[in-house]
Amino acid sequence: MEPSRPPECRPAEPGDAAELAGLLDAFNREFDEPTPGPEVLERRLAGLLRDAAVHAIVAGRPAVGLALVTLRPNVWFDGPVGLLDELYVVPDLRRRGLGTSLLEAAEREARRLGAQLMEINVDGEDTDARRFYERHGYACVAPGEPEPDLYYFKDLP
Amino acid sequence: MEPSRPPECRPAEPGDAAELAGLLDAFNREFDEPTPGPEVLERRLAGLLRDAAVHAIVAGRPAVGLALVTLRPNVWFDGPVGLLDELYVVPDLRRRGLGTSLLEAAEREARRLGAQLMEINVDGEDTDARRFYERHGYACVAPGEPEPDLYYFKDLP
Repeated sequence: MEPSRPPECRPAEPGDAAELAGLLDAFNREFDEPTPGPEVLERRLAGLLRDAAVHAIVAGRPAVGLALVTLRPNVWFDGPVGLLDELYVVPDLRRRGLGTSLLEAAEREARRLGAQLMEINVDGEDTDARRFYERHGYACVAPGEPEPDLYYFKDLP
Repeated sequence: MEPSRPPECRPAEPGDAAELAGLLDAFNREFDEPTPGPEVLERRLAGLLRDAAVHAIVAGRPAVGLALVTLRPNVWFDGPVGLLDELYVVPDLRRRGLGTSLLEAAEREARRLGAQLMEINVDGEDTDARRFYERHGYACVAPGEPEPDLYYFKDLP
């Protein structure tokens, strides 16, 4: 892969499901998170990529990175709110601006679909990710507030 | 209002939009957050309450509390992920378990709709809210991790 020709970012299509499933499976293995395996992820992605509440950006052919955004309706905005659920670049191609390209393409598409707000849940100890998002204008502390906003979760029984 | 007869929680219907809009408007005024006013909120809620990706629980007639949950598809789960976007009880009826009833009803409905995970974004300095959600099984620190998960956001230009 020539570093001088960065992989192009484009909207993902249902036919990208298998390659994106491989990336997400590798993503979670890299960070020791559980994964149901590429076959299950491919089946789910095939559905997600046909869902109007989801949009995905893919980098390269074959795919070497992806951004996955879900849009949900919200009472505080006329349009939807975007949530960046996944952002991944394969290890060999990191630190070349590909994450930035994916994030910017995801933001443009969310904006085009009417979103005025983008949200991301980030591990507090992932300082690389935090710096990356902060460099791109994201904040976890609202103006004038002393503490960051927190992401709480619970498995439903 | 008799403290011995707590207001009943029930699924919200489109006809509840006006009362729920009044509650959400009061909610944001109480916490000095911007609000577009009850008329705009009512219009949006009328749409939200017809959206399959949204479910709301309302307490009392007239309404004295609400929980609003959005469901989004997610690649890590077969079913949707639930996000508690709003939980509000009028000031006079707090500390009587009504928030618990609303939260539990919202969780039951999300579970019935297939969600295995519920998420909530909480202001870090809102220790009352944090204690409330932690008492109900929510965590912002994943097992074995040193730092809480953070909620990042950005206004899209």
